[in-house]
Amino acid sequence: MPEAGALAGPVEVIGTGLLGTSIALACREAGLEVLLTDASAEHVRTASGLGAGRPRLAGDRPQLVVVAVPPAYLGRVIAEALATDPDAIVTDVGSVKGAPLAEVGVLPGAERYVGGHPMAGSERSGPLAATSALFDGRPWAVTPHAGSRPEAVTLVEQLARVCRAVPVRMEPAEHDLAVARTSHVPHLLAVLVAGRLADAPAQHLALSGQGVRDVTRVAGGDPELYSQIVTGNAAAVVDLLGEVRDQLDRLIEAVASGDRSTLTGLLQRGQAGTRAIPGKHGGPVRATAAVFVAVPDEPGGLARLFADAGESGVNIEDVRIDHDLGRPVGLVELVVAEDSADRLCGSLESRGWAAHR
Amino acid sequence: MPEAGALAGPVEVIGTGLLGTSIALACREAGLEVLLTDASAEHVRTASGLGAGRPRLAGDRPQLVVVAVPPAYLGRVIAEALATDPDAIVTDVGSVKGAPLAEVGVLPGAERYVGGHPMAGSERSGPLAATSALFDGRPWAVTPHAGSRPEAVTLVEQLARVCRAVPVRMEPAEHDLAVARTSHVPHLLAVLVAGRLADAPAQHLALSGQGVRDVTRVAGGDPELYSQIVTGNAAAVVDLLGEVRDQLDRLIEAVASGDRSTLTGLLQRGQAGTRAIPGKHGGPVRATAAVFVAVPDEPGGLARLFADAGESGVNIEDVRIDHDLGRPVGLVELVVAEDSADRLCGSLESRGWAAHR
Repeated sequence: MPEAGALAGPVEVIGTGLLGTSIALACREAGLEVLLTDASAEHVRTASGLGAGRPRLAGDRPQLVVVAVPPAYLGRVIAEALATDPDAIVTDVGSVKGAPLAEVGVLPGAERYVGGHPMAGSERSGPLAATSALFDGRPWAVTPHAGSRPEAVTLVEQLARVCRAVPVRMEPAEHDLAVARTSHVPHLLAVLVAGRLADAPAQHLALSGQGVRDVTRVAGGDPELYSQIVTGNAAAVVDLLGEVRDQLDRLIEAVASGDRSTLTGLLQRGQAGTRAIPGKHGGPVRATAAVFVAVPDEPGGLARLFADAGESGVNIEDVRIDHDLGRPVGLVELVVAEDSADRLCGSLESRGWAAHR
Repeated sequence: MPEAGALAGPVEVIGTGLLGTSIALACREAGLEVLLTDASAEHVRTASGLGAGRPRLAGDRPQLVVVAVPPAYLGRVIAEALATDPDAIVTDVGSVKGAPLAEVGVLPGAERYVGGHPMAGSERSGPLAATSALFDGRPWAVTPHAGSRPEAVTLVEQLARVCRAVPVRMEPAEHDLAVARTSHVPHLLAVLVAGRLADAPAQHLALSGQGVRDVTRVAGGDPELYSQIVTGNAAAVVDLLGEVRDQLDRLIEAVASGDRSTLTGLLQRGQAGTRAIPGKHGGPVRATAAVFVAVPDEPGGLARLFADAGESGVNIEDVRIDHDLGRPVGLVELVVAEDSADRLCGSLESRGWAAHR
């Protein structure tokens, strides 16, 4: 007999796409009964076949309903869930929290709703892409509103832990400001930079290095999905984009007039921002250094490198690969603690690698 | 006896910092005599001690002079080199090409000057960070002006090849437009995004994922250096930033008014831009897929993963590591050819890894 307030199931998952099915799989691994609902009967069959649960039947009484439908349908489906199951706690996994709350916060039963947003995803979609490991160690925002029952909040935090994520509690409006800043606005600015490449002469693009690839990578995401997400967080996004435009005006003025002091000040502020991002495991950012190694671009090339790097006893914190233009070799950048870089470099050189800091 | 027009040395390197000393080391490896000059006698001693060449003496007659001084001094030092050695070819490695040309293009001897710009660098600086491998496979822009002698252009292209770089010939103005687009403007927009993080509440930053880290990484570069570089390419940068501002105005208007069609159009254009960046080895972009693997964050963890991945026979095209907030495990993203992803995933799972697409 589970203690009162413990997550005991059944858990109903409405929307058996990538996120919903992944949550269902994680709940099943934890031994919870899972009920599956989707507008597409085929998706439910697929998810069931993967072991994610069984279709919901008449008489089923979920303890927790997880709404995992596209952003535009969130409010309606959350409201239906609150009405259909008058004893169930209801949460969702949408990437914006204010918009659905505006629809459901005034309804009877709203005290049983607590928003959620796992910071995880994939370039793929649909139940076949699902995995119980999708949320491993990721932040999972849990966003109670003023009327949410405390035991409802606790239950949603338990769901996050069952999925092996790290619950991070914040207010819905605060969440939307946070993702505008750390996700939506960076995405949109990357889109504008990438847009300047779309019509560039091929010769210009031949000078592309790792920097522009990093800056623009997220802009490769699905335009339709991001259009829905950004529209759902319009107020926070517009506010921040307005700040960016003011800074852009200052920047253009400084570059055009040769005002080096303002320009350097803006660059320093950006540098400070990169240092404000939490480091590994949420701790402070540690001083790291990069060791560059030329690796033949063939199966096993990286394996040999990492085996030899492992011999050095140095822990590799990050890896980047910059593919060369002219020949079948990749330049691999191994990021390690600053005081280990020389040791790694020497160790690799002694094993025949062309390595340098 | 080398054929007429062949790079035979001596090569004088003026400015024995990271780039200059790296070029000197590559020239020495190719058997060329290298003369070293720097305002700092200590830098020359250090570079000599590394085997990069010897101090220039009275009576030395360089065939090629490579000017590798900070951006603000380029024009003056190139002009002095043209005057001091009336038979030598002179090149430089500055990241902007129009500004120095404006100073030296009208001087007697300008026909012996050909600009250059190797697309390589490091977070470190100074001769101790130098390595002959710095330019391996990197593009090296070679930028003759209208009056440059053809044999001077050929000689500078030979220098790029001696450094194992890939010479890419373009006009100086074209080069400056290209780097404004592929380097300076992406850098500045990353700075503006990062600037919005500098004063963000810690709670907001807790939701930071890989996306914002990628977008802002370059903004961590030295503000003073980038201030010099951007100021030296002001016209091209201001033009492009103006285009970005126009697009930003359209974007803000579209988000504020809920104009999904304009918003989606902008997002699609950005997506097209990411696909315009040349792929591996300069060829077309190939379809790739990501396989995610949880790896313990300890020495040897990555080595075991790559050894096991190597057993699958699948070539790994790229690697990204997303460190978890809550526990000592990194989520490693292995990018492979799309039609190899399932094979890699299955192979890793059969060896006990938690892997998913």
